[in-house]
Amino acid sequence: VSTIETGVIRDLDALLERARGAGDRSIAVVGAQNKTALAAALGAERIGLARAVLIGSKSLVEGLLREVSAGSSFADRVIDCAGEVECARLGVQLVRSGEARILMKGSMDTSALMKVVLDSAEGIRAGRLLSDVFVCEVRRADGPRLVLITDGGVTPHPDRQQKIEIIRNAVEVAHALGLECPKVALLSATERVTPAIPSTLDAAIITQMNRRGQIPGCVIDGPLALDLAVSPESAEVKRIDSPVAGEADILVAPDIEVANVLAKSTTYFAGFRSAHVIIGGRAPVLIPSRADAMEAKLFSIALGVIMCAEKE
Amino acid sequence: VSTIETGVIRDLDALLERARGAGDRSIAVVGAQNKTALAAALGAERIGLARAVLIGSKSLVEGLLREVSAGSSFADRVIDCAGEVECARLGVQLVRSGEARILMKGSMDTSALMKVVLDSAEGIRAGRLLSDVFVCEVRRADGPRLVLITDGGVTPHPDRQQKIEIIRNAVEVAHALGLECPKVALLSATERVTPAIPSTLDAAIITQMNRRGQIPGCVIDGPLALDLAVSPESAEVKRIDSPVAGEADILVAPDIEVANVLAKSTTYFAGFRSAHVIIGGRAPVLIPSRADAMEAKLFSIALGVIMCAEKE
Repeated sequence: VSTIETGVIRDLDALLERARGAGDRSIAVVGAQNKTALAAALGAERIGLARAVLIGSKSLVEGLLREVSAGSSFADRVIDCAGEVECARLGVQLVRSGEARILMKGSMDTSALMKVVLDSAEGIRAGRLLSDVFVCEVRRADGPRLVLITDGGVTPHPDRQQKIEIIRNAVEVAHALGLECPKVALLSATERVTPAIPSTLDAAIITQMNRRGQIPGCVIDGPLALDLAVSPESAEVKRIDSPVAGEADILVAPDIEVANVLAKSTTYFAGFRSAHVIIGGRAPVLIPSRADAMEAKLFSIALGVIMCAEKE
Repeated sequence: VSTIETGVIRDLDALLERARGAGDRSIAVVGAQNKTALAAALGAERIGLARAVLIGSKSLVEGLLREVSAGSSFADRVIDCAGEVECARLGVQLVRSGEARILMKGSMDTSALMKVVLDSAEGIRAGRLLSDVFVCEVRRADGPRLVLITDGGVTPHPDRQQKIEIIRNAVEVAHALGLECPKVALLSATERVTPAIPSTLDAAIITQMNRRGQIPGCVIDGPLALDLAVSPESAEVKRIDSPVAGEADILVAPDIEVANVLAKSTTYFAGFRSAHVIIGGRAPVLIPSRADAMEAKLFSIALGVIMCAEKE
C-alpha cells in the first residue's frame, strides 16, 4: 500500500486504490433522478470513494433508489429540488459552503450546469480558467501509462494565455498522479513552426516560456505531431531533439475539437480505459457522458477525489 | 477473385489484392536515393503492384540498389537528376506526359515537392483541390472496416467550399473501394450546432446541401462527435436521429490538426493498419512518413493504383 500511496499512478486501478485511501468526500449529484449517475454515485460510496448527496426530484430519486434496492440507506441523502437550474445552484452552494467536495452532473443539460458553475459571482470559479482533463490508460510495450488529454470540454478555441492556464490545470492533475515533472506535448499537425498553422506559433512561444521558467512544474515542447509526442520509435526515426518526444504525459490540443476527437479515439478506436474531470474551480466537476461505461464513471469520481486530496 | 474485384473492400489485404488485379502502373519516385522509399517501390514492383521509375542521383540510387541486391534488374529505371526541385519537376513532367501514373516522395522536403505539384501552370492540378485521404482498417466486433479520415495533409484550415471539395475527393476514394453511397460524418467536438464552435455551423450547412442534392454520391451528417460517428452503441445511447451515426465510412475533420491527430491516433494508439494518398490532381501523390512501416507504404501504393484504375 505504501508504494501505491506515494509513487506514480500508472493505471486506473491504482488510481481507484489511491482514491479509496484518500478518505471519502461528499459528491453532490445535481439532477439525481438519473439512473446511471445515481448508480455511479452509489457504486462509489459502496467502495469507499465518496459519500453521495442527491439533489433532485425527491419522488423520482427515491423511486430509482428503490429500483436499485438502496432505498433505506440513501433516503436521508436526498435533497428535494425541482428544476435543473435550481438543482445546479443548490449543488454549487453546497460546494461553496464546503458541504460537498465534488460536483457531478445527473439529469441536466451540460451547458445549463456549466453556466451556473462558471457564474462569476455565484459559481465555483477560483480565479482561474476551468478546463477538462481526460486521463486515458495507454497500453504500451513497456506497460500501462496514464496520458492526459486537454481541453476537450470547456474552452472552444483557447488563446495563448488560456492555453497556458489549461496546461497549468493538467500539470496539477499530473502532480496528483505522482508525476513530479510531467512532459507536456503541444500538439499540432507538424513539428515545424509555420505561420500557415497558427497553433505552431503558440506552441513555440509557450515552449520557450517554459524554458525561461515562466510555466513551472513541467517540461513543455511543441509543436509536435501525435506520433512524435507518444511514440519512442517515431521520435527516434525522425531524430527530433526534444525532451518530451515519445514520452509525453500530457497532450495539449490546440482547440476543443482536437482534444475531443483525440480523447474519443482513445476510447472508441483504441479501447483504452479513461476518466475525466473539469478542474480549476473550487471543486472538481464531473460531466459523465451518457455513453460512458460505469467503470469510466467510477474512475472519474476517483480522479475527482484525488484532485480534492491534492488541495488539502 | 470475382467477389474481390467487384465487392466492397473491407480490409487492406483485400485492397492489395484488388490493386494487383488492376494491372501495374508506373510509379515515379522523386528523390529515389532514399532507402525506405526505394524498398517500397521495389517491393510494390515485385508483387505486381506498380512499375518503378527512379528519379534521383544515379550513383546514390545505384548504390542503394546494389545494397538491396536489385542492381541489375532496376538499373535501366534510374533517371539521373540532381537537386530536389529538379527531381520533383521531372516527376511531375512524367505524370503530365502520362509516362508515370503515381508520384511518390523519396528524399525530399515535403513542402518543396508540394510546391512543384501544386504549381498552377506546371504542376499536376486538375482544376480541383488536392487533399490527403487516410484509410485505416478499423477493428470492430462485426469485422474489419475501412474508415477514411481527411484532410490531415494539405489544407490547414479549409473554408466551407474547400471542405466540400475535400469531401468530394474522399467520396471518390470510397467509391473506388466499392462503397456506392458512403456515409460521411462531419466531425466536431459536439453534435449541437452552436456559434461557439464555428465548424458546427459549416457542418450543418454542408449536411443540408447534401440533402438538397448539391453534394452527390454520399450521405452526409454533421456535426458529430467521434463517438457518435463511429460507435453504434454510442449512437443508440444518445438516441440521435442520423443516417450516418455509428456507421461513418468517411470522417471529415474541421481542420488539418484534427485530421492529423486522429489519423495518427489510429496508428499509434489503436494500432490500426493504414494507407494514405493525396488525390484531386492528375495523379495520386504518395508522401510516406519516415515513421511509416513498410506495410503502410505498400498499402499506400495499392491505394494509389486503385485510384488510377478508378479514373480509367
